[in-house]
Amino acid sequence: MLLGGLAEIADVGRDSRRGGYSRHLWQGADLELRSWFVERAERLGLEVETDRNGNLWAWWGSPGADAVVIGSHLDSVPGGGAYDGPLGVVSSLDAIARLQASGFVPTRPCAVLVFAEEEGSRFGIACLGSRLLAGAIDADRARALTDRDGVTLADAARQVGVDPAHLGVDRVTLARIGLFIELHVEQGRGLIDLGQPVAVASSILAHGRWRLTVTGQGNHAGATTMDERRDPMVATAQAIVAVQAAARQHTGARATIGRIEAIPGGTNVIASRVHAWLDARAETDAETRVLVADIQARAQQAAEQNGCFITLTEESWAGAVQFNPGLRARFAAVLGQVPQLPTGAGHDAGVLAAQVPSAMLFVRNPTGISHAPEEFAEVADCVAGIDALELVLRDLL
Amino acid sequence: MLLGGLAEIADVGRDSRRGGYSRHLWQGADLELRSWFVERAERLGLEVETDRNGNLWAWWGSPGADAVVIGSHLDSVPGGGAYDGPLGVVSSLDAIARLQASGFVPTRPCAVLVFAEEEGSRFGIACLGSRLLAGAIDADRARALTDRDGVTLADAARQVGVDPAHLGVDRVTLARIGLFIELHVEQGRGLIDLGQPVAVASSILAHGRWRLTVTGQGNHAGATTMDERRDPMVATAQAIVAVQAAARQHTGARATIGRIEAIPGGTNVIASRVHAWLDARAETDAETRVLVADIQARAQQAAEQNGCFITLTEESWAGAVQFNPGLRARFAAVLGQVPQLPTGAGHDAGVLAAQVPSAMLFVRNPTGISHAPEEFAEVADCVAGIDALELVLRDLL
Repeated sequence: MLLGGLAEIADVGRDSRRGGYSRHLWQGADLELRSWFVERAERLGLEVETDRNGNLWAWWGSPGADAVVIGSHLDSVPGGGAYDGPLGVVSSLDAIARLQASGFVPTRPCAVLVFAEEEGSRFGIACLGSRLLAGAIDADRARALTDRDGVTLADAARQVGVDPAHLGVDRVTLARIGLFIELHVEQGRGLIDLGQPVAVASSILAHGRWRLTVTGQGNHAGATTMDERRDPMVATAQAIVAVQAAARQHTGARATIGRIEAIPGGTNVIASRVHAWLDARAETDAETRVLVADIQARAQQAAEQNGCFITLTEESWAGAVQFNPGLRARFAAVLGQVPQLPTGAGHDAGVLAAQVPSAMLFVRNPTGISHAPEEFAEVADCVAGIDALELVLRDLL
Repeated sequence: MLLGGLAEIADVGRDSRRGGYSRHLWQGADLELRSWFVERAERLGLEVETDRNGNLWAWWGSPGADAVVIGSHLDSVPGGGAYDGPLGVVSSLDAIARLQASGFVPTRPCAVLVFAEEEGSRFGIACLGSRLLAGAIDADRARALTDRDGVTLADAARQVGVDPAHLGVDRVTLARIGLFIELHVEQGRGLIDLGQPVAVASSILAHGRWRLTVTGQGNHAGATTMDERRDPMVATAQAIVAVQAAARQHTGARATIGRIEAIPGGTNVIASRVHAWLDARAETDAETRVLVADIQARAQQAAEQNGCFITLTEESWAGAVQFNPGLRARFAAVLGQVPQLPTGAGHDAGVLAAQVPSAMLFVRNPTGISHAPEEFAEVADCVAGIDALELVLRDLL
């Protein structure tokens, strides 16, 4: 059944507290989704293997070089939507099923690829599976990453049978990818404004994550007068206000604090330390660097005003991506008057773009909202996405 | 051994992540401390019983009416110091041990009382054990309180053998208390400034806790332009800055946000909702109400500026306390030129003060810091505290 895959996983990893879905790498819901994918792919006669970095490959025919690889991811942000990731996986399987049903015989290898930890929700680094595969993150650094419970990526990998010693750049696997195509729900309003169901991606903003830590002096919330305080929560609040102000001054830039942790976190306790995670993006690498430097200076000033001090640590970085012009032209030739849209969202296709020709297809999201339960796609638009994917596969395979 | 009790529990509930101690009601460290207290008290020949609300009573001689009750609590804030609570319990046991060793025979009943959940770190309401005992919180409301894992107080009580049906005002137990004395480490700089080791408490600021919830629209941190956002984190940050500003405009007031939670809490996600807990205090009930109304108005404005909306829910309230003038005069007569100091910190003695004559002794804290690992008391000052407690017990018993 077309898009039946989305219905099959509709109850996996629902988050009753946040709304939407919480599906995090190698934990309950994610493991369930991975098993579901294996079964689903095997039902199409695809042969599934897990690569050294925990990414799942489902091969149509024999694995081999110069493959056309399509896919996306199954993990989510905390409280995310139903489409970000799974739509690309389900559409890939459905496109292959259609080709099989029509008797189409590919002339080159083809695989559906499910990347691990695309959202970085468990270990903090987005596109971790593709970064490891492509050598875009140091393996030792990756192994030492910890989740919120202090579990390292190495230990988490071991627990699911992935040998942590083998994490890292995987040139053999990478060499098989002739080109990569990721279909994804749109995470903005581009297609709404154009009145179109499907677009081809043109570029991805430069983006990164930084951890801002503000240190003050923990103390009693009732016994400490306002003048005696060195309250890192107030300094962090001023910094968050400054993040918004700074981003507004840089054209096209976006900067967000969406995750914050006060230590010790007692209601009757002035915090001793606050961690706040900054997500910052702009059109070019240089503009993003300037934005973050601007934010750092403002946070520094906020800290000084409150007798606190700060550190700002880069946790991940992804330079701006221009998707392969040749592939985009070929897509346009196959799909006709399909719009080309930039995006502010990072993707595994963006990481792979530095190594192999990569492309993306976007499906309209009528709410314009993503990374939240309101994320949506009409069935007709999802079908248009599969139509497009099938057409480009017929052309490329 | 004098103050040996503090040494005996020095390793119970250490918090390696926050520093200091995390000892929360009926969880590992707290249960260990309660067992330790029973054993310690029984070593002095005291008879220990648990009242209907989980408070521990160690009776010197037969339980009875018009008792002199001394004590404090053993639970802590997250990452708290070693003295807040345990100093009063250990000093009470040590004062009785001294009286016993000197052959002193009391003429009225005496008990050491350990209150449950004084800090409210698990269920959010400070002085929960004394509030329940004194009927200062509705039992049904208390039973329904939940900890951060969603466990209700009723279920938590059941798990440790306290019948939740019997939680609530306990007039029989209350009627036994002739007067209550709580010795406590000072949580400010009063005794440092006076160059004195011990003080008698004069009053407690009015104080309460409110939960501020700011609701906006969750969305993608990269794909959502700054103009499209309704970001509750930015609104909350503006509100936190306003909390500081408002408190500074009300003489003697204190207002703090020390606990915050962003939902869903992903780095690449604009939050959909932020909870921030407000602790607000001022000299009088009316001043505290005015302060909170002022903060609410400012938070409302911050929310509107960001397309968000707020709710502000009172989670607990404690009116200003003037400690019993008769007891204070009697302490002054016994102890000589002992300073009388107000405090901004809430205490079980403040809750009991509405029902029975209550008093407090403060021991100097050379850092002036409390609710943090830096909280401290010199041995000589702790001894001076026990000296004072022994003297007032000799006078009252």
